[in-house]
Amino acid sequence: MRAGIRSHRDITSFDIETDVCVIGLGAAGAAAAIDARAAGADVVVLERASGGGGTSALSGGVLYLGGGTSLQTACGFEDSPEDMYQYLMASVGEVPDEPKIRRYCDGSVEHFEWVKAQGVPYKETYYPGISGEPPTDDGLVYSGAETTSPFCDIARPAPRGHVGAKTHQTGPLLMQHLCASTERSGARVLGDRRVTELVLDDDGVVVGVVAEHFGEPLAIRARGGVVIATGGFVLNDEMLQQYVPRALRCKLRVAGDGDDGSGIRLGVAAGAATLHMEKASISLPVTQPWGLKRGVMVNGRGQRFINEDTYYGRLGERALFHEDGRAFLIVDDDIFEEPAYCKEIAAVGESFEELERELSLPPGSLDATMAVYNRHAADGTDPAFGKRSEYLQPLLKAPFGAIDCTTENCLYAAFTLGGMVTDVEARVLGPQGDVIPGLYAAGRSSAGVCAGDYSSGLSLGDATFFGRIAGRNAAAGNA
Amino acid sequence: MRAGIRSHRDITSFDIETDVCVIGLGAAGAAAAIDARAAGADVVVLERASGGGGTSALSGGVLYLGGGTSLQTACGFEDSPEDMYQYLMASVGEVPDEPKIRRYCDGSVEHFEWVKAQGVPYKETYYPGISGEPPTDDGLVYSGAETTSPFCDIARPAPRGHVGAKTHQTGPLLMQHLCASTERSGARVLGDRRVTELVLDDDGVVVGVVAEHFGEPLAIRARGGVVIATGGFVLNDEMLQQYVPRALRCKLRVAGDGDDGSGIRLGVAAGAATLHMEKASISLPVTQPWGLKRGVMVNGRGQRFINEDTYYGRLGERALFHEDGRAFLIVDDDIFEEPAYCKEIAAVGESFEELERELSLPPGSLDATMAVYNRHAADGTDPAFGKRSEYLQPLLKAPFGAIDCTTENCLYAAFTLGGMVTDVEARVLGPQGDVIPGLYAAGRSSAGVCAGDYSSGLSLGDATFFGRIAGRNAAAGNA
Repeated sequence: MRAGIRSHRDITSFDIETDVCVIGLGAAGAAAAIDARAAGADVVVLERASGGGGTSALSGGVLYLGGGTSLQTACGFEDSPEDMYQYLMASVGEVPDEPKIRRYCDGSVEHFEWVKAQGVPYKETYYPGISGEPPTDDGLVYSGAETTSPFCDIARPAPRGHVGAKTHQTGPLLMQHLCASTERSGARVLGDRRVTELVLDDDGVVVGVVAEHFGEPLAIRARGGVVIATGGFVLNDEMLQQYVPRALRCKLRVAGDGDDGSGIRLGVAAGAATLHMEKASISLPVTQPWGLKRGVMVNGRGQRFINEDTYYGRLGERALFHEDGRAFLIVDDDIFEEPAYCKEIAAVGESFEELERELSLPPGSLDATMAVYNRHAADGTDPAFGKRSEYLQPLLKAPFGAIDCTTENCLYAAFTLGGMVTDVEARVLGPQGDVIPGLYAAGRSSAGVCAGDYSSGLSLGDATFFGRIAGRNAAAGNA
Repeated sequence: MRAGIRSHRDITSFDIETDVCVIGLGAAGAAAAIDARAAGADVVVLERASGGGGTSALSGGVLYLGGGTSLQTACGFEDSPEDMYQYLMASVGEVPDEPKIRRYCDGSVEHFEWVKAQGVPYKETYYPGISGEPPTDDGLVYSGAETTSPFCDIARPAPRGHVGAKTHQTGPLLMQHLCASTERSGARVLGDRRVTELVLDDDGVVVGVVAEHFGEPLAIRARGGVVIATGGFVLNDEMLQQYVPRALRCKLRVAGDGDDGSGIRLGVAAGAATLHMEKASISLPVTQPWGLKRGVMVNGRGQRFINEDTYYGRLGERALFHEDGRAFLIVDDDIFEEPAYCKEIAAVGESFEELERELSLPPGSLDATMAVYNRHAADGTDPAFGKRSEYLQPLLKAPFGAIDCTTENCLYAAFTLGGMVTDVEARVLGPQGDVIPGLYAAGRSSAGVCAGDYSSGLSLGDATFFGRIAGRNAAAGNA
C-alpha cells in the first residue's frame, strides 16, 4: 500500500478496538477526547511524546472567545456574537470560512463555560495594556486588532483574549487542566505511540490506525472515527520550503516537538484536500512597549506599509510576506524607549537623510515618507493607514533611530495555519467537498478559523472548539 | 467508494484495455500521447470536448525554450542551458523546483526540434518589439523579464519565446499540428468523454479510469499508467474562492471550457499532494506600447512598487496580489500615447496634487513619490527598483494623467499555476514524497516549472516537455 495508508485487508487482527481514536494530545486532542467520552464513547488517545501537552503547552495559553462570555461580562465589557463575527470575517484573512466562523462565534459563550468546567482558573480582571499575553495573572486582554483601523469601524471592539490565572506560563496551565480532565474522563491515553498509517477499508472509509511503539506496530480499530489533532508543520523544513519558505527565516518557531505535519500528510494520503498551506501566523513584537507605536514602520525602500498601532501579528505578516522580512521602525528622541524584544538598532542619525544612507534606502525615500507622515500627524490624521490619533506624533527631534525589524536581526515568531479542509462538523473533506468517512480533524492539522491574518488565541480557540465537535461526531459515527 | 475514485473490485469488466490512458487533449496530453506511442505503447486519449485543443489552442502559442535552440542560433542569439537555468531559478517565484528546471533547461534544445518535427512551422526571424506575443509572424521574441532588473544582472539575457509562423492565432496553429501528430501517431482519440473517476487497485495503484460518454459509463484499463493533462482551475469559481480569490476579479480568464480543476481533484482524491494552489499568472498589459514604460506605476497609497519596464506578467502579479488590484500608471504629456489595451484614464490634472485628489490618494503621497522619482530619473538612475535608463525620464510636462490599472477598469488576464506535485519523471507524488503508482501528470494540472512569477511560454513549454516524459514513463510502466 502507499505511504501513510494501509488496507484493512493487510491487518490480520487489531490490537485494540475502540469507538474513537484521537491522534495527538494537545488542546484539540484533549477537547476531542473529553467530549467523545462525554458522549459515551470508548476513547483511545495516541500521543507521540511520552506525555500530553503538545505545542499548546508551550503557547501563551490565550483563547480567543467572545460574544458576551462570563469573563467579559464580569470585567464590564459588552460583546455580541455578531460583533465577534464581523471582526473575524474582516480580519482573519482573504478567505474567511464563513460557516465555521459563524458556528465559532455563536458557540463561544458556552465554550468558555466548558473550558472553566475542565478546571482552568480565570481571574475576572481586565489587563488594559499589551495586546496579546498580559504580563500579569489578569484574565481578559485585547489580543487582536479590534481597536485599530479598519476593524474599529467594522465591529464594536471588545477584548476577547481569555487567559488563565497565572503570570506567564498560561499555556502549561491550560494543558495541565485539559490533560487532567482527559484522564478523568476515562479516555485511555497511550504515550510514545507515533501513528504511521491510517487504515482504510475497500470503500476508502477510515476504520483505524497503525501506530509505532518503540519499533513495534500497534493496530487500532476505531468504530466511530479517527480524529487527527497533531498540529501544524512549522518544524518540517521540507514542507516549509515548499509552502511557506519565508517562515524558515523566522528566528522562533512556535512549536512542540510534534509539529512536523505528520497528521496532515496522513490525511492527504487518504484523499484529504488542504487549504491555506502557504499561510502562517508571524508575530513581530516590535511595538512593545506600546509607546513605540508612535514610530513609523518602513520597508526596504523607505515606504510605510501598515498602521503601526495594529496587532503585532499583522505587523509580522505584512513585514515578512509583503516586504520580504526587511523593515525598520523609525523613532525620534522624544518617543524612543527601550524595546522589550526587538533591541537591535540598525541606524542612528541627526537627519532622515543620514538614516537613509546608513540603511541603504533609496536616497530621498525616507525623507519623503517622513515629510508626508509628519505633515498629517501634526493634524492628528493618517490618511494612508488610519493609525489612531493617540499614536500620531510628528517625529521631529534628533537624533533619529531605526529599530531593526529584519528577519536577520529581529524576533519573528512563526507557526503554520494551513492544513486539511474540514467542515463545521470537523469532518475531513476530499477535493470535491465530499466527506472522507471516519476521518475528523481539529487544531492546526486543519485549516481553521484563521485563514492567514492572526489574532492571539484563535488557534487554541478553534482547536478546542472544533476538537470537541470532532470528538462528539466521531463518537456518534457521524460521517 | 469516495468521490473521484473507484475500486477495481467494482468494475466487472473494462470496456477498453490499453497501455497508456491520457486524460485531456491540450498541449500536455498531445505530447504525452505522441511520445507514449513513439515508445510503442497502445494509447487512448480521452477528451471531454468533442475535439482536441483545450486552453492551449486559445493561448498565444508561445513556448519558452532556450539554451541555444536552432531558432535562437538562426536569429543570431547566443544562449546556454546555464543562463536559462539561472534566469528561471531567479524569476519563477519563491520556490523554484530546481530538479525540474534543470531538466527543462538541459532538454530545451532537443525539445524544440521535437516540436518542429510535429510539423509546427517557425519563421527564423526575431521580433524586437513587444514582450510576449509578437504582432507579426516572426518566430523569436523576448517573452519574460530577462533584460530588466534584477535578472539582467543574474543571467545573460536571450529571447526565449518561440512562436509559430502565423500572425496572431499561434495557439491554434500549435494545437492544429500537435493534434494532427497525435492522430498520425496511432493514438486512439475519443472525444466527448469526461473522466469521472480514477480506478485504484487494493494497493492504491492507479489502474484505469471511468469516463462518461453521453451519460453512459466507460471503464478503461491502463496497464502502464494514466496521464492527467486536464489543465488548471481558473474556471472553477469555488476553487478560485478558496485558493486564489483575487483571480475572481480579473476581467479575463485564460481558459478553454475544461479548466475547472477536475483532473487536480481526481488526483487529490487518489492521494496526490498539491502545490502553489494560491499562485496564478496575471498579465497586466498596461505598458503597451512600450513607450509607456516611462510612466510611473503607483499603488492606492501613491507609492511605487515595481520597475515599470519589467514583463507585464510581473506587473500583474504585483498589482493584484501585493497591491490588491489597485494601481495607476502616472504619465505626463511628453510620454503619453494611446494605450493598446488599458485605455481607461482615471484622472487628468495640471499637477500631481490634482491627480492625488482625483484618485483619492493620501494628500502629498504622489507628489512625494514623483519628486523622488524625478530627481533620480534626471540622473538616469532608479535606486528603488532598477528601471533601465532608457525608460527613465522625469515626468515634468503638464497635463499629467493616471492610466487606470484597477481590476475594475483594466484588463487583468489570469490562469492558475497550482496543481498536483510531480517529480522530474512526471510521476504524481503523495504527501510523503512517495510516488502514486500508475499516475502521471503534466501541464497546469500539475505544479510545474513556474512557481508563481510567470514568463510567457513557460506553461506550454513545460506542458509539452513534461507531457512527453509522462507519456514515455507511462508507456514503460515506470512508477
